[in-house]
Amino acid sequence: MTEEHDHSHGYISNKEAYLKRMRRIEGQARGLQKMIDEEKYCIDILTQVSAMTSALQSVALGLLEEHLNHCVAGALENGGAEADAKLNEATQAIARLVRS
Amino acid sequence: MTEEHDHSHGYISNKEAYLKRMRRIEGQARGLQKMIDEEKYCIDILTQVSAMTSALQSVALGLLEEHLNHCVAGALENGGAEADAKLNEATQAIARLVRS
Amino acid sequence: MTEEHDHSHGYISNKEAYLKRMRRIEGQARGLQKMIDEEKYCIDILTQVSAMTSALQSVALGLLEEHLNHCVAGALENGGAEADAKLNEATQAIARLVRS
Amino acid sequence: MTEEHDHSHGYISNKEAYLKRMRRIEGQARGLQKMIDEEKYCIDILTQVSAMTSALQSVALGLLEEHLNHCVAGALENGGAEADAKLNEATQAIARLVRS
Repeated sequence: MTEEHDHSHGYISNKEAYLKRMRRIEGQARGLQKMIDEEKYCIDILTQVSAMTSALQSVALGLLEEHLNHCVAGALENGGAEADAKLNEATQAIARLVRS
Repeated sequence: MTEEHDHSHGYISNKEAYLKRMRRIEGQARGLQKMIDEEKYCIDILTQVSAMTSALQSVALGLLEEHLNHCVAGALENGGAEADAKLNEATQAIARLVRS
Repeated sequence: MTEEHDHSHGYISNKEAYLKRMRRIEGQARGLQKMIDEEKYCIDILTQVSAMTSALQSVALGLLEEHLNHCVAGALENGGAEADAKLNEATQAIARLVRS
Repeated sequence: MTEEHDHSHGYISNKEAYLKRMRRIEGQARGLQKMIDEEKYCIDILTQVSAMTSALQSVALGLLEEHLNHCVAGALENGGAEADAKLNEATQAIARLVRS
């Protein structure tokens, strides 16, 4: 993580909504521990994992849209090598999401 | 969730290891809240989301293998409609994992 | 690919249906070449890629179910190291599908 | 497909390279038909499906980067409702890729 990444970036338009979604996902992680501890039926556990994964990807896609809208849009306005770098960085992050 | 699913199924060979992995995933969910709250750089947040998704899918794949090894293998030994139903149910769960 | 893999395995219950689906997927690959050659709108191309990916995964899930039903079920009946190996091999293949 | 989508968009910087990749993917689709027809070992078929899916996603990610770089960057420069619409459209396409 470079120095650039150390300060607040101010790109998240509705921070409280994202925090609420992440708290719900944290709750799903705790719920899964309970299901595993009680050895609930495996298929029901897998269904919960799929729901949790979808919720997590949905948060990621929302943050990505904000990032494209603010950071990448700003860099594209200025153009040049900085714009290419931001775009490439965003595409790499999308590739990781697609493959994970 | 049917009545069948309400008792312990005893198919998880190393429950403590799965619980430990889920506690780490819960910790990742809390770490992401902190990153969002501090508006860390979006790409770093997305990298964490990808890591958390991979960890979650890895837990799912482990549980699925145990399920195939115990519940499905047992049903296949007996054969008939019960075996087909178990196999179809497992395939549906795999499809949800592939698509989530 | 081991010698074991060189002969016909006879596990596909409806081969003609799978061939038909794969020919349709091949047609989608040709359609995408036409769209790219004519520089159709990128989003429309991406929508076609998503449809083609889903069709391909659906074929994979069908074949996987047949494999579990025939090859893996057979190995599980016999039990022992062979059963463990088949199950592990299937789980690895599922993991590749989930991650691709 | 709107009228807007009917003409060439000129955003693909290296069309021949994409066409070559799509021809290779078409070849993979034909190879899979041969494997299914000869009932090759299921796991080997699934490995090929995973490779083909990855190749297809890689094409999609490349085209997406070009789209962001040209169409979306252009709209963002102009700003306003058009920029928001383009960004939202791109995010929807990314979501379909992530989920397919």
